[in-house]
Amino acid sequence: MKIGFIGAGIMGRPMALNLINAGHEIYTWGRRFDTVEPLLVAGATGKGTPAEVAASAEICFTMVANTTDVEQVVLGERGLVHGANPGSIIVDMSTSAPSATRRIAQELAKRRVHMLDAPVSGGQVGASQGTLSIMVGGEADIFERVKPLFEILGKNIVHVGDHGAGQVVKACNQVVISLTMEGVAEAILLARKNGVDPAKMREALMGGYANSKILEVHGLKMLEENYKAGFKVKLHHKDMGIVMDNAHENKAPLPGAELVSRQITSLMEAGEGELDSSAIMKALERLSSQ
Amino acid sequence: MKIGFIGAGIMGRPMALNLINAGHEIYTWGRRFDTVEPLLVAGATGKGTPAEVAASAEICFTMVANTTDVEQVVLGERGLVHGANPGSIIVDMSTSAPSATRRIAQELAKRRVHMLDAPVSGGQVGASQGTLSIMVGGEADIFERVKPLFEILGKNIVHVGDHGAGQVVKACNQVVISLTMEGVAEAILLARKNGVDPAKMREALMGGYANSKILEVHGLKMLEENYKAGFKVKLHHKDMGIVMDNAHENKAPLPGAELVSRQITSLMEAGEGELDSSAIMKALERLSSQ
Repeated sequence: MKIGFIGAGIMGRPMALNLINAGHEIYTWGRRFDTVEPLLVAGATGKGTPAEVAASAEICFTMVANTTDVEQVVLGERGLVHGANPGSIIVDMSTSAPSATRRIAQELAKRRVHMLDAPVSGGQVGASQGTLSIMVGGEADIFERVKPLFEILGKNIVHVGDHGAGQVVKACNQVVISLTMEGVAEAILLARKNGVDPAKMREALMGGYANSKILEVHGLKMLEENYKAGFKVKLHHKDMGIVMDNAHENKAPLPGAELVSRQITSLMEAGEGELDSSAIMKALERLSSQ
Repeated sequence: MKIGFIGAGIMGRPMALNLINAGHEIYTWGRRFDTVEPLLVAGATGKGTPAEVAASAEICFTMVANTTDVEQVVLGERGLVHGANPGSIIVDMSTSAPSATRRIAQELAKRRVHMLDAPVSGGQVGASQGTLSIMVGGEADIFERVKPLFEILGKNIVHVGDHGAGQVVKACNQVVISLTMEGVAEAILLARKNGVDPAKMREALMGGYANSKILEVHGLKMLEENYKAGFKVKLHHKDMGIVMDNAHENKAPLPGAELVSRQITSLMEAGEGELDSSAIMKALERLSSQ
Protein backbone atom coordinates (compact mmCIF):
# COMPACT_ATOMS: atom_id res chain seq x y z
CA MET A 1 0.00 0.00 0.00
CA LYS A 2 1.14 3.61 -0.59
CA ILE A 3 1.69 5.11 2.83
CA GLY A 4 2.76 8.56 3.98
CA PHE A 5 4.86 8.80 7.13
CA ILE A 6 5.87 12.08 8.75
CA GLY A 7 7.92 12.19 11.93
CA ALA A 8 10.90 9.81 11.73
CA GLY A 9 12.14 10.49 15.27
CA ILE A 10 13.07 8.05 18.03
CA MET A 11 9.64 6.42 17.84
CA GLY A 12 8.62 7.16 14.26
CA ARG A 13 11.76 5.89 12.57
CA PRO A 14 11.53 2.23 13.67
CA MET A 15 7.76 2.33 13.05
CA ALA A 16 8.23 3.54 9.47
CA LEU A 17 10.99 0.96 8.93
CA ASN A 18 8.64 -1.79 10.11
CA LEU A 19 6.10 -0.66 7.50
CA ILE A 20 8.80 -0.66 4.79
CA ASN A 21 9.98 -4.13 5.85
CA ALA A 22 6.40 -5.37 5.59
CA GLY A 23 6.48 -4.42 1.91
CA HIS A 24 4.72 -1.07 1.88
CA GLU A 25 5.68 1.93 -0.27
CA ILE A 26 6.55 4.81 2.05
CA TYR A 27 6.46 8.53 1.14
CA THR A 28 8.00 10.90 3.62
CA TRP A 29 8.98 14.48 4.35
CA GLY A 30 10.91 16.04 7.21
CA ARG A 31 12.13 19.43 8.36
CA ARG A 32 15.66 18.07 8.76
CA PHE A 33 17.24 15.77 6.19
CA ASP A 34 19.13 13.65 8.73
CA THR A 35 15.92 12.41 10.36
CA VAL A 36 14.44 11.35 7.01
CA GLU A 37 17.66 9.87 5.58
CA PRO A 38 17.44 6.39 7.21
CA LEU A 39 13.98 5.94 5.67
CA LEU A 40 15.26 6.96 2.21
CA VAL A 41 18.16 4.52 2.58
CA ALA A 42 15.61 1.80 3.40
CA GLY A 43 13.68 2.58 0.20
CA ALA A 44 11.22 5.35 1.11
CA THR A 45 10.54 8.18 -1.34
CA GLY A 46 11.21 11.72 -0.13
CA LYS A 47 8.76 14.52 -0.98
CA GLY A 48 9.09 18.31 -0.81
CA THR A 49 6.07 19.03 1.40
CA PRO A 50 3.55 17.17 3.60
CA ALA A 51 0.93 18.04 0.95
CA GLU A 52 2.94 16.14 -1.69
CA VAL A 53 3.27 13.17 0.68
CA ALA A 54 -0.51 13.12 1.14
CA ALA A 55 -1.10 13.36 -2.61
CA SER A 56 0.94 10.16 -3.09
CA ALA A 57 -0.65 8.03 -0.33
CA GLU A 58 -3.89 6.35 0.70
CA ILE A 59 -3.04 6.51 4.38
CA CYS A 60 -0.73 9.03 6.08
CA PHE A 61 0.80 8.55 9.54
CA THR A 62 2.10 11.38 11.71
CA MET A 63 4.38 10.77 14.70
CA VAL A 64 5.57 14.19 15.80
CA ALA A 65 6.60 15.85 19.06
CA ASN A 66 3.52 17.71 20.22
CA THR A 67 0.07 19.15 19.50
CA THR A 68 1.43 22.24 17.71
CA ASP A 69 3.51 20.08 15.36
CA VAL A 70 0.49 17.89 14.55
CA GLU A 71 -1.60 20.96 13.70
CA GLN A 72 1.22 22.37 11.60
CA VAL A 73 1.91 19.17 9.66
CA VAL A 74 -1.77 18.39 9.05
CA LEU A 75 -3.48 21.78 8.66
CA GLY A 76 -0.57 24.25 8.21
CA GLU A 77 0.63 25.83 4.98
CA ARG A 78 1.60 22.95 2.63
CA GLY A 79 0.16 20.58 5.27
CA LEU A 80 -1.21 17.11 4.54
CA VAL A 81 -4.75 18.45 4.14
CA HIS A 82 -3.74 20.44 1.06
CA GLY A 83 -2.72 17.33 -0.86
CA ALA A 84 -4.88 14.61 0.71
CA ASN A 85 -7.17 12.73 -1.65
CA PRO A 86 -10.87 12.55 -0.71
CA GLY A 87 -11.50 9.23 1.04
CA SER A 88 -7.89 9.00 2.29
CA ILE A 89 -6.99 8.65 5.98
CA ILE A 90 -4.67 10.61 8.26
CA VAL A 91 -3.59 8.71 11.37
CA ASP A 92 -1.99 10.76 14.14
CA MET A 93 0.08 8.49 16.38
CA SER A 94 1.64 11.34 18.35
CA THR A 95 0.49 12.02 21.91
CA SER A 96 -1.47 15.24 21.58
CA ALA A 97 -4.40 17.08 23.14
CA PRO A 98 -7.81 15.37 22.69
CA SER A 99 -9.50 18.73 21.98
CA ALA A 100 -7.03 19.53 19.16
CA THR A 101 -7.54 16.05 17.70
CA ARG A 102 -11.30 16.55 17.57
CA ARG A 103 -10.81 19.95 15.90
CA ILE A 104 -8.42 18.52 13.28
CA ALA A 105 -10.81 15.65 12.55
CA GLN A 106 -13.61 18.19 11.93
CA GLU A 107 -11.43 20.23 9.56
CA LEU A 108 -10.43 17.11 7.64
CA ALA A 109 -14.02 15.91 7.42
CA LYS A 110 -14.87 19.10 5.46
CA ARG A 111 -12.48 17.86 2.74
CA ARG A 112 -13.82 14.28 3.02
CA VAL A 113 -10.52 13.17 4.56
CA HIS A 114 -10.83 10.71 7.46
CA MET A 115 -8.86 10.84 10.68
CA LEU A 116 -7.85 8.47 13.44
CA ASP A 117 -6.02 9.36 16.64
CA ALA A 118 -3.81 6.42 17.57
CA PRO A 119 -1.27 7.24 20.29
CA VAL A 120 0.95 4.46 21.52
CA SER A 121 2.53 3.08 24.66
CA GLY A 122 5.55 0.81 24.85
CA GLY A 123 8.45 3.14 24.07
CA GLN A 124 11.35 2.78 21.70
CA VAL A 125 11.65 -0.96 22.32
CA GLY A 126 7.98 -1.48 21.47
CA ALA A 127 8.37 0.67 18.35
CA SER A 128 11.38 -1.36 17.14
CA GLN A 129 9.89 -4.76 17.90
CA GLY A 130 6.42 -3.89 16.62
CA THR A 131 4.88 -4.56 20.02
CA LEU A 132 3.37 -1.15 20.81
CA SER A 133 0.02 -0.77 22.53
CA ILE A 134 -2.15 1.36 20.24
CA MET A 135 -5.23 3.22 21.53
CA VAL A 136 -7.39 4.26 18.62
CA GLY A 137 -10.11 6.91 18.39
CA GLY A 138 -12.29 7.52 15.31
CA GLU A 139 -14.90 5.80 13.15
CA ALA A 140 -15.09 2.01 13.39
CA ASP A 141 -14.95 1.34 9.64
CA ILE A 142 -11.91 3.59 9.23
CA PHE A 143 -10.26 1.75 12.13
CA GLU A 144 -10.89 -1.55 10.33
CA ARG A 145 -9.24 -0.22 7.16
CA VAL A 146 -6.07 0.79 9.02
CA LYS A 147 -5.99 -2.21 11.38
CA PRO A 148 -3.71 -4.40 9.19
CA LEU A 149 -1.10 -1.60 9.35
CA PHE A 150 -1.53 -1.19 13.11
CA GLU A 151 -0.86 -4.92 13.40
CA ILE A 152 2.56 -4.38 11.84
CA LEU A 153 3.33 -1.66 14.41
CA GLY A 154 1.86 -3.08 17.58
CA LYS A 155 0.29 -5.94 19.50
CA ASN A 156 -2.45 -4.67 21.80
CA ILE A 157 -4.62 -2.61 19.45
CA VAL A 158 -7.90 -1.36 20.91
CA HIS A 159 -10.53 0.85 19.24
CA VAL A 160 -11.61 2.86 22.28
CA GLY A 161 -14.20 5.26 20.83
CA ASP A 162 -14.80 8.27 18.60
CA HIS A 163 -12.34 11.04 17.59
CA GLY A 164 -10.12 12.01 20.51
CA ALA A 165 -10.87 8.86 22.53
CA GLY A 166 -7.45 7.43 21.69
CA GLN A 167 -5.79 10.56 23.07
CA VAL A 168 -8.02 10.47 26.16
CA VAL A 169 -7.03 6.86 26.85
CA LYS A 170 -3.37 7.77 26.37
CA ALA A 171 -3.89 10.53 28.96
CA CYS A 172 -5.43 7.92 31.31
CA ASN A 173 -2.42 5.68 30.65
CA GLN A 174 -0.06 8.48 31.72
CA VAL A 175 -2.12 9.11 34.88
CA VAL A 176 -1.85 5.45 35.94
CA ILE A 177 1.85 5.25 35.08
CA SER A 178 2.66 8.51 36.90
CA LEU A 179 0.93 7.50 40.11
CA THR A 180 2.32 3.98 40.09
CA MET A 181 5.80 5.44 39.61
CA GLU A 182 5.23 7.89 42.48
CA GLY A 183 4.09 4.96 44.67
CA VAL A 184 7.23 2.99 43.86
CA ALA A 185 9.43 6.04 44.55
CA GLU A 186 7.73 6.72 47.91
CA ALA A 187 8.06 3.05 48.90
CA ILE A 188 11.79 3.11 48.12
CA LEU A 189 12.21 6.30 50.17
CA LEU A 190 10.25 4.82 53.08
CA ALA A 191 12.35 1.64 53.09
CA ARG A 192 15.61 3.63 52.99
CA LYS A 193 14.55 5.97 55.79
CA ASN A 194 13.82 2.87 57.90
CA GLY A 195 17.21 1.36 57.15
CA VAL A 196 15.59 -1.46 55.16
CA ASP A 197 17.21 -2.58 51.90
CA PRO A 198 14.91 -1.23 49.14
CA ALA A 199 16.05 -4.02 46.78
CA LYS A 200 14.68 -6.62 49.23
CA MET A 201 11.52 -4.56 49.52
CA ARG A 202 11.05 -4.54 45.74
CA GLU A 203 11.73 -8.29 45.57
CA ALA A 204 9.10 -8.97 48.23
CA LEU A 205 6.51 -6.71 46.58
CA MET A 206 7.03 -8.25 43.14
CA GLY A 207 5.42 -11.46 44.35
CA GLY A 208 2.12 -9.87 45.36
CA TYR A 209 -0.64 -7.39 44.66
CA ALA A 210 1.72 -4.43 44.50
CA ASN A 211 3.50 -5.80 41.45
CA SER A 212 3.52 -3.98 38.12
CA LYS A 213 5.77 -3.42 35.11
CA ILE A 214 6.58 -0.04 36.67
CA LEU A 215 7.82 -1.70 39.90
CA GLU A 216 9.89 -4.11 37.82
CA VAL A 217 11.42 -1.73 35.30
CA HIS A 218 11.31 1.76 36.81
CA GLY A 219 11.73 0.44 40.36
CA LEU A 220 15.05 -1.10 39.28
CA LYS A 221 16.16 2.15 37.59
CA MET A 222 15.40 4.05 40.81
CA LEU A 223 17.32 1.53 42.94
CA GLU A 224 20.34 1.70 40.64
CA GLU A 225 19.97 5.49 40.24
CA ASN A 226 20.26 4.78 36.53
CA TYR A 227 18.30 7.60 34.95
CA LYS A 228 19.43 7.15 31.36
CA ALA A 229 16.30 7.56 29.18
CA GLY A 230 14.09 5.60 28.20
CA PHE A 231 11.05 7.81 28.32
CA LYS A 232 12.38 11.29 29.00
CA VAL A 233 11.24 13.61 31.77
CA LYS A 234 10.59 16.34 29.18
CA LEU A 235 8.16 14.09 27.28
CA HIS A 236 6.47 13.00 30.49
CA HIS A 237 6.21 16.71 31.35
CA LYS A 238 4.59 17.44 27.99
CA ASP A 239 2.14 14.52 28.42
CA MET A 240 1.16 15.60 31.93
CA GLY A 241 0.50 19.08 30.56
CA ILE A 242 -2.01 17.50 28.15
CA VAL A 243 -3.52 15.48 31.03
CA MET A 244 -3.95 18.44 33.37
CA ASP A 245 -5.28 20.77 30.64
CA ASN A 246 -7.84 18.14 29.69
CA ALA A 247 -8.74 17.53 33.35
CA HIS A 248 -9.36 21.25 33.87
CA GLU A 249 -11.40 21.58 30.67
CA ASN A 250 -13.57 18.65 31.76
CA LYS A 251 -13.73 19.53 35.47
CA ALA A 252 -12.11 16.24 36.50
CA PRO A 253 -10.22 16.72 39.78
CA LEU A 254 -7.06 14.58 39.59
CA PRO A 255 -5.25 15.37 42.84
CA GLY A 256 -2.71 12.55 42.44
CA ALA A 257 -1.85 13.37 38.83
CA GLU A 258 -1.52 17.04 39.80
CA LEU A 259 0.92 16.16 42.58
CA VAL A 260 3.13 14.08 40.27
CA SER A 261 2.92 16.82 37.61
CA ARG A 262 4.38 19.28 40.10
CA GLN A 263 7.24 16.89 40.84
CA ILE A 264 7.95 16.47 37.11
CA THR A 265 7.89 20.26 36.69
CA SER A 266 10.46 20.53 39.49
CA LEU A 267 12.73 18.16 37.52
CA MET A 268 12.38 20.40 34.45
CA GLU A 269 13.27 23.41 36.58
CA ALA A 270 16.36 21.54 37.82
CA GLY A 271 17.47 21.04 34.19
CA GLU A 272 16.79 17.28 34.27
CA GLY A 273 14.48 17.02 31.25
CA GLU A 274 16.78 14.60 29.44
CA LEU A 275 16.72 12.01 32.27
CA ASP A 276 14.42 9.01 32.34
CA SER A 277 11.02 9.76 33.84
CA SER A 278 11.80 7.42 36.75
CA ALA A 279 13.92 10.36 37.98
CA ILE A 280 10.85 11.47 39.97
CA MET A 281 12.75 9.50 42.64
CA LYS A 282 15.26 12.40 42.57
CA ALA A 283 12.49 14.96 43.04
CA LEU A 284 11.23 13.03 46.06
CA GLU A 285 14.75 12.79 47.52
CA ARG A 286 15.14 16.55 47.19
CA LEU A 287 11.81 17.05 48.97
CA SER A 288 13.12 14.74 51.68
CA SER A 289 16.40 16.61 52.17
CA GLN A 290 14.75 20.05 52.50
CA MET B 1 5.13 -29.53 65.48
CA LYS B 2 3.32 -27.95 68.45
CA ILE B 3 2.16 -24.54 67.26
CA GLY B 4 0.31 -21.74 69.02
CA PHE B 5 -2.09 -19.64 66.92
CA ILE B 6 -3.91 -16.57 68.22
CA GLY B 7 -6.24 -14.54 66.03
CA ALA B 8 -8.61 -16.79 64.08
CA GLY B 9 -10.29 -13.96 62.16
CA ILE B 10 -10.95 -13.61 58.43
CA MET B 11 -7.25 -14.07 57.66
CA GLY B 12 -6.08 -16.10 60.66
CA ARG B 13 -8.72 -18.80 60.50
CA PRO B 14 -7.82 -20.22 57.05
CA MET B 15 -4.12 -19.85 57.90
CA ALA B 16 -4.50 -21.88 61.11
CA LEU B 17 -6.59 -24.47 59.26
CA ASN B 18 -3.83 -24.84 56.66
CA LEU B 19 -1.35 -25.56 59.47
CA ILE B 20 -3.74 -28.14 60.97
CA ASN B 21 -4.27 -29.76 57.55
CA ALA B 22 -0.50 -30.01 57.15
CA GLY B 23 -0.44 -32.19 60.26
CA HIS B 24 0.58 -29.74 62.97
CA GLU B 25 -0.79 -29.68 66.52
CA ILE B 26 -2.45 -26.30 67.08
CA TYR B 27 -3.04 -24.64 70.47
CA THR B 28 -5.28 -21.61 70.49
CA TRP B 29 -7.05 -19.01 72.59
CA GLY B 30 -9.50 -16.26 71.71
CA ARG B 31 -11.52 -13.53 73.36
CA ARG B 32 -14.70 -14.78 71.74
CA PHE B 33 -15.51 -18.48 71.55
CA ASP B 34 -17.16 -18.30 68.12
CA THR B 35 -13.91 -17.21 66.42
CA VAL B 36 -11.94 -20.08 67.96
CA GLU B 37 -14.64 -22.74 67.48
CA PRO B 38 -13.82 -23.65 63.82
CA LEU B 39 -10.23 -24.40 64.84
CA LEU B 40 -11.38 -26.61 67.73
CA VAL B 41 -13.73 -28.46 65.37
CA ALA B 42 -10.76 -29.04 63.06
CA GLY B 43 -8.74 -30.55 65.93
CA ALA B 44 -7.02 -27.64 67.65
CA THR B 45 -6.73 -27.56 71.45
CA GLY B 46 -8.25 -24.56 73.26
CA LYS B 47 -6.35 -22.94 76.13
CA GLY B 48 -7.47 -20.52 78.86
CA THR B 49 -4.90 -17.76 78.23
CA PRO B 50 -2.24 -16.79 75.65
CA ALA B 51 0.38 -17.69 78.29
CA GLU B 52 -0.94 -21.27 78.39
CA VAL B 53 -0.85 -21.42 74.59
CA ALA B 54 2.80 -20.32 74.61
CA ALA B 55 3.66 -22.89 77.30
CA SER B 56 2.39 -25.67 75.02
CA ALA B 57 4.11 -24.60 71.79
CA GLU B 58 7.52 -24.21 70.16
CA ILE B 59 6.33 -21.51 67.77
CA CYS B 60 3.39 -19.13 68.32
CA PHE B 61 1.69 -17.16 65.57
CA THR B 62 -0.37 -14.03 66.14
CA MET B 63 -2.73 -12.62 63.50
CA VAL B 64 -4.72 -9.90 65.23
CA ALA B 65 -6.37 -6.64 64.25
CA ASN B 66 -3.85 -3.95 65.18
CA THR B 67 -0.73 -2.88 67.07
CA THR B 68 -2.54 -2.58 70.43
CA ASP B 69 -3.88 -6.13 70.14
CA VAL B 70 -0.42 -7.48 69.31
CA GLU B 71 1.05 -5.75 72.37
CA GLN B 72 -1.80 -7.05 74.55
CA VAL B 73 -1.61 -10.65 73.35
CA VAL B 74 2.19 -10.81 73.53
CA LEU B 75 3.17 -8.62 76.49
CA GLY B 76 -0.12 -8.03 78.34
CA GLU B 77 -1.33 -9.70 81.53
CA ARG B 78 -1.45 -13.46 80.81
CA GLY B 79 0.19 -12.69 77.44
CA LEU B 80 2.33 -15.13 75.45
CA VAL B 81 5.53 -13.85 77.08
CA HIS B 82 4.41 -15.13 80.49
CA GLY B 83 4.25 -18.75 79.32
CA ALA B 84 6.76 -18.83 76.46
CA ASN B 85 9.62 -21.30 76.79
CA PRO B 86 13.16 -19.94 76.41
CA GLY B 87 14.28 -20.57 72.84
CA SER B 88 10.73 -20.54 71.49
CA ILE B 89 9.59 -18.17 68.74
CA ILE B 90 6.71 -15.71 68.48
CA VAL B 91 5.76 -14.79 64.91
CA ASP B 92 3.52 -11.75 64.48
CA MET B 93 1.78 -11.94 61.13
CA SER B 94 -0.53 -8.99 61.81
CA THR B 95 0.11 -5.65 60.13
CA SER B 96 1.38 -3.47 62.93
CA ALA B 97 3.71 -0.53 63.59
CA PRO B 98 7.42 -1.25 62.94
CA SER B 99 8.44 0.69 66.08
CA ALA B 100 6.12 -1.44 68.27
CA THR B 101 7.48 -4.62 66.68
CA ARG B 102 11.06 -3.61 67.51
CA ARG B 103 10.02 -2.84 71.12
CA ILE B 104 8.23 -6.20 71.51
CA ALA B 105 11.23 -8.06 70.07
CA GLN B 106 13.48 -6.35 72.65
CA GLU B 107 11.17 -7.31 75.52
CA LEU B 108 11.01 -10.90 74.34
CA ALA B 109 14.79 -11.08 73.93
CA LYS B 110 15.13 -10.38 77.68
CA ARG B 111 13.32 -13.70 78.31
CA ARG B 112 15.31 -15.45 75.58
CA VAL B 113 12.20 -15.68 73.39
CA HIS B 114 12.74 -14.98 69.67
CA MET B 115 10.51 -12.90 67.49
CA LEU B 116 9.78 -12.50 63.80
CA ASP B 117 7.50 -9.93 62.20
CA ALA B 118 5.88 -11.52 59.17
CA PRO B 119 2.99 -9.49 57.77
CA VAL B 120 1.29 -10.77 54.66
CA SER B 121 -0.27 -9.59 51.42
CA GLY B 122 -2.74 -11.51 49.29
CA GLY B 123 -5.97 -11.22 51.24
CA GLN B 124 -8.52 -13.82 52.24
CA VAL B 125 -8.08 -15.77 48.99
CA GLY B 126 -4.31 -15.98 49.52
CA ALA B 127 -4.86 -17.06 53.14
CA SER B 128 -7.25 -19.86 52.11
CA GLN B 129 -5.16 -21.11 49.21
CA GLY B 130 -1.85 -20.83 51.05
CA THR B 131 -0.53 -18.35 48.46
CA LEU B 132 0.16 -15.32 50.66
CA SER B 133 3.18 -13.09 50.16
CA ILE B 134 5.06 -13.03 53.47
CA MET B 135 7.55 -10.27 54.34
CA VAL B 136 9.72 -11.35 57.23
CA GLY B 137 11.85 -9.31 59.63
CA GLY B 138 14.10 -10.77 62.32
CA GLU B 139 17.21 -12.92 62.69
CA ALA B 140 18.16 -15.09 59.70
CA ASP B 141 18.53 -18.37 61.64
CA ILE B 142 15.14 -17.89 63.30
CA PHE B 143 13.63 -17.20 59.87
CA GLU B 144 15.11 -20.49 58.61
CA ARG B 145 13.51 -22.38 61.52
CA VAL B 146 10.05 -21.01 60.76
CA LYS B 147 10.37 -21.14 56.97
CA PRO B 148 8.81 -24.61 56.53
CA LEU B 149 5.68 -23.28 58.27
CA PHE B 150 5.65 -20.10 56.17
CA GLU B 151 5.75 -22.36 53.10
CA ILE B 152 2.44 -23.89 54.20
CA LEU B 153 0.90 -20.42 54.48
CA GLY B 154 2.34 -18.63 51.48
CA LYS B 155 4.28 -18.66 48.25
CA ASN B 156 6.46 -15.58 47.97
CA ILE B 157 8.37 -15.61 51.24
CA VAL B 158 11.17 -13.05 51.56
CA HIS B 159 13.42 -12.39 54.55
CA VAL B 160 13.78 -8.62 54.19
CA GLY B 161 15.91 -7.67 57.19
CA ASP B 162 16.09 -7.33 60.95
CA HIS B 163 13.23 -6.86 63.48
CA GLY B 164 10.59 -4.52 62.07
CA ALA B 165 11.78 -4.82 58.46
CA GLY B 166 8.81 -7.05 57.60
CA GLN B 167 6.43 -4.38 58.87
CA VAL B 168 8.33 -1.66 57.00
CA VAL B 169 8.05 -3.63 53.75
CA LYS B 170 4.33 -4.17 54.40
CA ALA B 171 4.03 -0.39 54.82
CA CYS B 172 5.84 0.04 51.48
CA ASN B 173 3.43 -2.46 49.95
CA GLN B 174 0.45 -0.39 51.12
CA VAL B 175 2.03 2.79 49.71
CA VAL B 176 2.42 1.23 46.26
CA ILE B 177 -1.06 -0.30 46.32
CA SER B 178 -2.70 2.95 47.50
CA LEU B 179 -1.09 5.08 44.82
CA THR B 180 -1.73 2.56 42.05
CA MET B 181 -5.37 2.41 43.13
CA GLU B 182 -5.59 6.22 43.13
CA GLY B 183 -4.08 6.26 39.63
CA VAL B 184 -6.66 3.77 38.36
CA ALA B 185 -9.50 5.74 39.99
CA GLU B 186 -8.30 9.04 38.47
CA ALA B 187 -7.95 7.41 35.04
CA ILE B 188 -11.54 6.10 35.24
CA LEU B 189 -12.80 9.55 36.26
CA LEU B 190 -10.85 11.21 33.42
CA ALA B 191 -12.25 8.77 30.84
CA ARG B 192 -15.84 9.28 32.08
CA LYS B 193 -15.55 13.08 32.11
CA ASN B 194 -14.39 12.87 28.48
CA GLY B 195 -17.31 10.64 27.50
CA VAL B 196 -14.95 7.71 26.85
CA ASP B 197 -15.98 4.22 27.99
CA PRO B 198 -13.75 3.47 31.01
CA ALA B 199 -14.07 -0.29 30.36
CA LYS B 200 -12.44 0.21 26.93
CA MET B 201 -9.81 2.38 28.59
CA ARG B 202 -9.01 -0.35 31.13
CA GLU B 203 -8.86 -2.97 28.36
CA ALA B 204 -6.41 -0.85 26.35
CA LEU B 205 -4.21 -0.14 29.38
CA MET B 206 -4.07 -3.80 30.43
CA GLY B 207 -1.96 -4.56 27.36
CA GLY B 208 0.83 -2.13 28.23
CA TYR B 209 3.07 -0.53 30.79
CA ALA B 210 0.17 0.72 32.92
CA ASN B 211 -0.98 -2.81 33.72
CA SER B 212 -1.07 -4.15 37.26
CA LYS B 213 -3.08 -6.53 39.43
CA ILE B 214 -4.72 -3.40 40.87
CA LEU B 215 -5.90 -2.29 37.39
CA GLU B 216 -7.22 -5.80 36.74
CA VAL B 217 -8.95 -6.50 40.04
CA HIS B 218 -9.72 -3.14 41.68
CA GLY B 219 -10.19 -1.41 38.33
CA LEU B 220 -12.99 -3.87 37.56
CA LYS B 221 -14.58 -3.32 40.98
CA MET B 222 -14.54 0.44 40.37
CA LEU B 223 -16.08 0.06 36.90
CA GLU B 224 -18.84 -2.17 38.25
CA GLU B 225 -19.24 -0.02 41.38
CA ASN B 226 -19.02 -3.32 43.25
CA TYR B 227 -17.54 -2.33 46.60
CA LYS B 228 -18.22 -5.53 48.49
CA ALA B 229 -15.05 -6.27 50.52
CA GLY B 230 -12.40 -7.75 49.90
CA PHE B 231 -9.90 -5.69 51.77
CA LYS B 232 -11.97 -3.26 53.82
CA VAL B 233 -11.61 0.52 53.86
CA LYS B 234 -11.30 0.41 57.67
CA LEU B 235 -8.30 -1.92 57.45
CA HIS B 236 -6.73 0.16 54.70
CA HIS B 237 -7.31 3.20 56.94
CA LYS B 238 -5.57 1.46 59.84
CA ASP B 239 -2.63 0.45 57.62
CA MET B 240 -2.23 3.96 56.21
CA GLY B 241 -2.17 5.26 59.78
CA ILE B 242 0.82 2.99 60.41
CA VAL B 243 2.44 4.18 57.16
CA MET B 244 2.01 7.89 57.90
CA ASP B 245 3.09 7.59 61.56
CA ASN B 246 6.21 5.75 60.46
CA ALA B 247 6.86 8.28 57.67
CA HIS B 248 6.66 11.15 60.19
CA GLU B 249 8.89 9.36 62.72
CA ASN B 250 11.50 8.81 60.02
CA LYS B 251 11.10 12.18 58.26
CA ALA B 252 10.12 10.54 54.98
CA PRO B 253 7.87 12.91 53.01
CA LEU B 254 5.26 10.78 51.22
CA PRO B 255 3.03 13.34 49.51
CA GLY B 256 1.17 10.75 47.43
CA ALA B 257 0.50 8.37 50.31
CA GLU B 258 -0.65 11.32 52.39
CA LEU B 259 -3.12 12.36 49.70
CA VAL B 260 -4.63 8.87 49.43
CA SER B 261 -4.74 8.62 53.25
CA ARG B 262 -6.90 11.74 53.33
CA GLN B 263 -9.27 10.20 50.77
CA ILE B 264 -9.52 7.00 52.82
CA THR B 265 -10.21 9.07 55.94
CA SER B 266 -13.03 10.81 54.07
CA LEU B 267 -14.56 7.37 53.36
CA MET B 268 -14.38 6.53 57.08
CA GLU B 269 -16.09 9.85 57.87
CA ALA B 270 -18.82 8.96 55.36
CA GLY B 271 -19.44 5.70 57.25
CA GLU B 272 -18.02 3.55 54.43
CA GLY B 273 -15.44 1.59 56.44
CA GLU B 274 -16.99 -1.77 55.58
CA LEU B 275 -16.67 -1.26 51.80
CA ASP B 276 -13.81 -2.61 49.73
CA SER B 277 -10.79 -0.31 49.64
CA SER B 278 -11.36 0.24 45.90
CA ALA B 279 -14.14 2.58 47.10
CA ILE B 280 -11.56 5.40 46.93
CA MET B 281 -13.28 5.78 43.53
CA LYS B 282 -16.31 7.03 45.51
CA ALA B 283 -14.19 9.57 47.39
CA LEU B 284 -12.85 10.88 44.08
CA GLU B 285 -16.35 11.09 42.61
CA ARG B 286 -17.49 13.13 45.61
CA LEU B 287 -14.52 15.47 45.12
CA SER B 288 -15.59 15.77 41.51
CA SER B 289 -19.22 16.63 42.28
CA GLN B 290 -18.35 19.38 44.78
